[in-house]
Amino acid sequence: MNKRKICAVVTARPSYSRIKTALKAIQEHPNLELQLVVAGSALLGRYGNAVNVIEKDGFKIDEKVFMVLEGENPTAMAKTTGLGVMELSNVFYNLKPDAVITIADRFETIATSIAAAYQNIPLVHIQGGEVTGNIDEKVRHANTKLADLHLVASEDAKDRVVKLGEDPAYVINTGCPSIDIAKEVLENNNYEFDPIKKYGGVGADLDISNGYLVVMQHPETNRYKSAREDVLCTLEAVHELNIPTFWFWPNVDAGSDGTSNGIRYYRENFNPENIRFFKNMEPNDFLHLLKNCDCLVGNSSVGIRECSFIGVPTVNIGTRQNRRQRGKNVVDAEYNKEAIKTAIQERIGQKGMLSEHIYGNGNSGKQIADALANTELIAHKMIMY
Amino acid sequence: MNKRKICAVVTARPSYSRIKTALKAIQEHPNLELQLVVAGSALLGRYGNAVNVIEKDGFKIDEKVFMVLEGENPTAMAKTTGLGVMELSNVFYNLKPDAVITIADRFETIATSIAAAYQNIPLVHIQGGEVTGNIDEKVRHANTKLADLHLVASEDAKDRVVKLGEDPAYVINTGCPSIDIAKEVLENNNYEFDPIKKYGGVGADLDISNGYLVVMQHPETNRYKSAREDVLCTLEAVHELNIPTFWFWPNVDAGSDGTSNGIRYYRENFNPENIRFFKNMEPNDFLHLLKNCDCLVGNSSVGIRECSFIGVPTVNIGTRQNRRQRGKNVVDAEYNKEAIKTAIQERIGQKGMLSEHIYGNGNSGKQIADALANTELIAHKMIMY
Amino acid sequence: MNKRKICAVVTARPSYSRIKTALKAIQEHPNLELQLVVAGSALLGRYGNAVNVIEKDGFKIDEKVFMVLEGENPTAMAKTTGLGVMELSNVFYNLKPDAVITIADRFETIATSIAAAYQNIPLVHIQGGEVTGNIDEKVRHANTKLADLHLVASEDAKDRVVKLGEDPAYVINTGCPSIDIAKEVLENNNYEFDPIKKYGGVGADLDISNGYLVVMQHPETNRYKSAREDVLCTLEAVHELNIPTFWFWPNVDAGSDGTSNGIRYYRENFNPENIRFFKNMEPNDFLHLLKNCDCLVGNSSVGIRECSFIGVPTVNIGTRQNRRQRGKNVVDAEYNKEAIKTAIQERIGQKGMLSEHIYGNGNSGKQIADALANTELIAHKMIMY
Amino acid sequence: MNKRKICAVVTARPSYSRIKTALKAIQEHPNLELQLVVAGSALLGRYGNAVNVIEKDGFKIDEKVFMVLEGENPTAMAKTTGLGVMELSNVFYNLKPDAVITIADRFETIATSIAAAYQNIPLVHIQGGEVTGNIDEKVRHANTKLADLHLVASEDAKDRVVKLGEDPAYVINTGCPSIDIAKEVLENNNYEFDPIKKYGGVGADLDISNGYLVVMQHPETNRYKSAREDVLCTLEAVHELNIPTFWFWPNVDAGSDGTSNGIRYYRENFNPENIRFFKNMEPNDFLHLLKNCDCLVGNSSVGIRECSFIGVPTVNIGTRQNRRQRGKNVVDAEYNKEAIKTAIQERIGQKGMLSEHIYGNGNSGKQIADALANTELIAHKMIMY
Repeated sequence: MNKRKICAVVTARPSYSRIKTALKAIQEHPNLELQLVVAGSALLGRYGNAVNVIEKDGFKIDEKVFMVLEGENPTAMAKTTGLGVMELSNVFYNLKPDAVITIADRFETIATSIAAAYQNIPLVHIQGGEVTGNIDEKVRHANTKLADLHLVASEDAKDRVVKLGEDPAYVINTGCPSIDIAKEVLENNNYEFDPIKKYGGVGADLDISNGYLVVMQHPETNRYKSAREDVLCTLEAVHELNIPTFWFWPNVDAGSDGTSNGIRYYRENFNPENIRFFKNMEPNDFLHLLKNCDCLVGNSSVGIRECSFIGVPTVNIGTRQNRRQRGKNVVDAEYNKEAIKTAIQERIGQKGMLSEHIYGNGNSGKQIADALANTELIAHKMIMY
Repeated sequence: MNKRKICAVVTARPSYSRIKTALKAIQEHPNLELQLVVAGSALLGRYGNAVNVIEKDGFKIDEKVFMVLEGENPTAMAKTTGLGVMELSNVFYNLKPDAVITIADRFETIATSIAAAYQNIPLVHIQGGEVTGNIDEKVRHANTKLADLHLVASEDAKDRVVKLGEDPAYVINTGCPSIDIAKEVLENNNYEFDPIKKYGGVGADLDISNGYLVVMQHPETNRYKSAREDVLCTLEAVHELNIPTFWFWPNVDAGSDGTSNGIRYYRENFNPENIRFFKNMEPNDFLHLLKNCDCLVGNSSVGIRECSFIGVPTVNIGTRQNRRQRGKNVVDAEYNKEAIKTAIQERIGQKGMLSEHIYGNGNSGKQIADALANTELIAHKMIMY
Repeated sequence: MNKRKICAVVTARPSYSRIKTALKAIQEHPNLELQLVVAGSALLGRYGNAVNVIEKDGFKIDEKVFMVLEGENPTAMAKTTGLGVMELSNVFYNLKPDAVITIADRFETIATSIAAAYQNIPLVHIQGGEVTGNIDEKVRHANTKLADLHLVASEDAKDRVVKLGEDPAYVINTGCPSIDIAKEVLENNNYEFDPIKKYGGVGADLDISNGYLVVMQHPETNRYKSAREDVLCTLEAVHELNIPTFWFWPNVDAGSDGTSNGIRYYRENFNPENIRFFKNMEPNDFLHLLKNCDCLVGNSSVGIRECSFIGVPTVNIGTRQNRRQRGKNVVDAEYNKEAIKTAIQERIGQKGMLSEHIYGNGNSGKQIADALANTELIAHKMIMY
Repeated sequence: MNKRKICAVVTARPSYSRIKTALKAIQEHPNLELQLVVAGSALLGRYGNAVNVIEKDGFKIDEKVFMVLEGENPTAMAKTTGLGVMELSNVFYNLKPDAVITIADRFETIATSIAAAYQNIPLVHIQGGEVTGNIDEKVRHANTKLADLHLVASEDAKDRVVKLGEDPAYVINTGCPSIDIAKEVLENNNYEFDPIKKYGGVGADLDISNGYLVVMQHPETNRYKSAREDVLCTLEAVHELNIPTFWFWPNVDAGSDGTSNGIRYYRENFNPENIRFFKNMEPNDFLHLLKNCDCLVGNSSVGIRECSFIGVPTVNIGTRQNRRQRGKNVVDAEYNKEAIKTAIQERIGQKGMLSEHIYGNGNSGKQIADALANTELIAHKMIMY
């Protein structure tokens, strides 16, 4: 029997964490063959060189696709996507996969969807059916309408994809692979690593013996002009709290330069004595860091998903995660220094709170591989109503 | 008060008929300013040079966008779309419209949608909410999910767009502008034109004093390899019936070369004595031709929409129009010579059947312009459930 | 010892004849490995599907690159070239050749040159140093300035490339591979084929027992608006002479639609009873056809090169071959019906004229392979003066 | 009389200085109309936002073209160029200029040349005929072979362009517009500005009362892997000399990230107490800074041109300017810390050396405008031998 060739396209650092255990499970599945394409900001040093992590994790990369257009504005985002369609069309034409996986809702993921759908290749969408603000909201649901098989991360998401007119037979709740990694981390009490020694970073020396914060703040697409200002709010709040803090640079996006500029400006002018800045960590290390932290701050979806499973207190700023189903670990705050400070202070000390299994039970990668092996692969569909 | 700048992108000959009276109404509206972009196959001689018709109708074209990649395959369709995203991103960046109109569901219309949505320009989708087979089905609903304002053509379509999670306040049934033109034609009994004298065409001399057929058959995207065979079925059926026939070339699409090759082959080898072939007619002339014909044959949506309003018997072949709401004027047939012959024969003589107002009452252009002038233009939204 | 990987990019039907024996010799050379890329109009049915011939000749194609933009104008030529740079950059990035071959001077060949040169891959230019009119003139010499190794087809060309400031150590006169094929054909008197039976074609039945003409006329880039008119001149001349004629469709170019339209118009309206039209023949068959013809008419470089070697009388029309070194087999004519008629009539009967070895002695493919195996491959150079 | 529309494409910060006074002179010429396109890295904050300077200088920008692809490698350079061809083809199609200006030899300038030449628009090349190392060498001479009118900067360059087969009637030595600016600066003794106050920069506080150095070092294209190492040599040399130094970031290029990384690494780890780093200065300010400096160090062409006119001692490192005609103000050094140190020390104190007029007499902008107004504009040419 011929193995099904499953082509996954990873376009950014955070997407990799969302798919890693599924890639592994596909690779190991007797009836599947993995084709891996790494593209976009996942290839760029400015955004943490996810490609290096992927290779270190033992994956063979079939194609690398450079497609990010510089320009610090929405026009560049649009053109990057157009370029992605052209490049990925070539890639799929040459790789001839039996199915293509597009991940979640980053702006460039629709390039994967179009390149596959227009070439009549069955399209699998991971993590559709969620709700957020921003252009991501439009992209995610458009991906759903272009996709043939939907592997969603929660019951809530499953209901929504079915409401969108998809055939329930092709909507499967596999949970989110990022929870698989979280589970491993939660269960592993022997892992030791010194984040500063291993990753360097720049900025203050941190004494984390009495606890610490982790911050990860991305620009919001529809506020990209205020990205600099938005990040300065959080910088000031965290600086004033004077709790040791690991701060991560944002991923590429129109406006990430606003966020980056804000961080660089603040560092050079205020040299905050409690913050150290990092470009990237391997997902595993990052989760160990989270697991032991007092509070995650920012607008990363990690706070909603992994932290819900592990039980890490999270202060979620702004509207980026607005309508993602969230657990009791999350509290929201506006872009306001005092609001952020207050929210963080209230969370400190709640590290023992119960985790919840909203986004999967830690076995999602395998469930995805099984769904890919066992579900009929089709390339045409019709709305159910 | 500043006029709202409304940018419409016309990418193909049939799309122009779907929007023409709306363009006129926008142009004449005191609070709107029309920006017109002509792109894709609408610029190409091989596909009837719609651009010439548009200019003859008195429209000023703001930008022409060449984006069709040759290649006779789905990869070329995908790349054409990617190129369209890149080119149209530039166009909107320079024209700075207050809203962009994308029309219906041709594969390249998603390029308009992405270029607008990613640049935070409110996107208006005309004729969403319908159901067909093919890649169009995916593209149409993806356009809906990228769009902010939906101007649909029937109540059926309106219900479906609302079910897709769009805010009912931004879903307006304006009917289809193609019906406006049909209405004019239906009411005008003084127009005389000799289609062969005016348009030439090639093939048989036709004596149409005892009635005639009109045929328009496009390739189906997911059957593009059988496009040649499919069109040969219809050619044989129509040839054998020996009724005078006006036959129109297909519009550009992966596979249109299959259809075109089939037609060319049949002509050169069988020289059918009852068929004359045409590249294009002005929409107005085409409708006069339809109005007086005994039966429309093929898979054009004209049979479903305009012919329903005018009351023209229609034999609809294959699955291309599969789930479009249809009136009593339509009967379906498979790709089978005998089935097609029988269906046509049964229709002949029913020319007097009553028309229906499923897709508007003939005032759609003005309704669209009013909706564009009076509805709040937004660029961000969230699914309603 | 590692074989040198030599990547050749074939972008059009005529280019293939210019390189075929070299491809074979590279393939068979113990120290070379052939990487073959087929791109542009060589992939398109409208232009004779050269790709099928290439595969039938037993070559394995490493990549196919669709890059031709429709548009019937110089803007499309420019964009096709830009797209070619992007696509071929990917191809070379993945194939990692030790050298890239760009052939002659078609507009899109500079895409190959840029994609290789910018990636520091040694660039080999075949058939530089010649002189013609049109955009080809600019493209050819620009290719020379981007290339590192020059394999030219005549002494005249060699002198010119050296004058252009190239290092004589890297300018080698290998002759033209098209002459190798001509030689085989000239020496093979047992080959029999019936062109009409084998290739079909459309138009008149030809009785060629008393001789025949071959016509091949391309649009001139800087006269692309008059391409239709230009070809009509020749059609009328040849029609009036009433000698049986094999007429070949032009290759893709801005304006080829003008030429194609002219041919189609003339056929449909005048149905010339002495002309039969063909899309393409395998190079070998085409040369046998030439070898026995009374006169080649048009503006193909075949008249200058192969026909000089074989000794076929040639009427060369217009300025397209203006300054190519030519043998005594060639006479020039303007775009004027009477001039063309007179020139053809004067040539008829001179079939026995002596051939000349201006463009090689029939061993060029092997000489090219040897040069590629034995010359130092560099990627950087400096002008010699 | 219609004014000639002259379209200039500025793709990078340094190119702007090379054309600024010509742009002004074109704008003011009674028979010319300026069309200004700003593209590539000239639009990007990372490379100094030249676009802001251009607008502040009072120029109206007709089109902005985002075309820089991220990727830190030669593949990205090639793709940026391909994208540039596509985008600029559109721009010229819409602006319909009577002539297009391409400037010098940066890799992306060939995109301007192709987009113009292929559309039969007369192409004017500024500063052809020079000799350097790198990919620039190939690009410059290819630009010459694509161009119709050559406005060169020195007699040496003029001779070389004529040797390249260009018609001497279309090769005019206008000198270099950058010298015009240098002349103004040299003659203006009243200008006062405090570079640190005006531009900020980061790094050491500088006391420049006893003299200072200026450093500007770009990666060499064919050494892009050693860019980091190369810049570290110079950093160490300058650090050890302990002379106050203004250091400028490199412009965009494959490898500029190597150079940038090197600079960033050195700063963060050695915090050199005599160096301050700047992104960009307005050309005028930069020249004032140069005029008063003791020595320019690096590989910028400013050292060869402007510094020759002004008489600034220059230490030129590596091969980037290898065969540019140079004055007595220049001494060369290899990528070697000690060699660089010695060369700088020997230059210090020679500030009074005589200037030379190799690259023009300070009136070049006007000479260029006059040439553009008075020379016949052609779009086709043939090599002269």
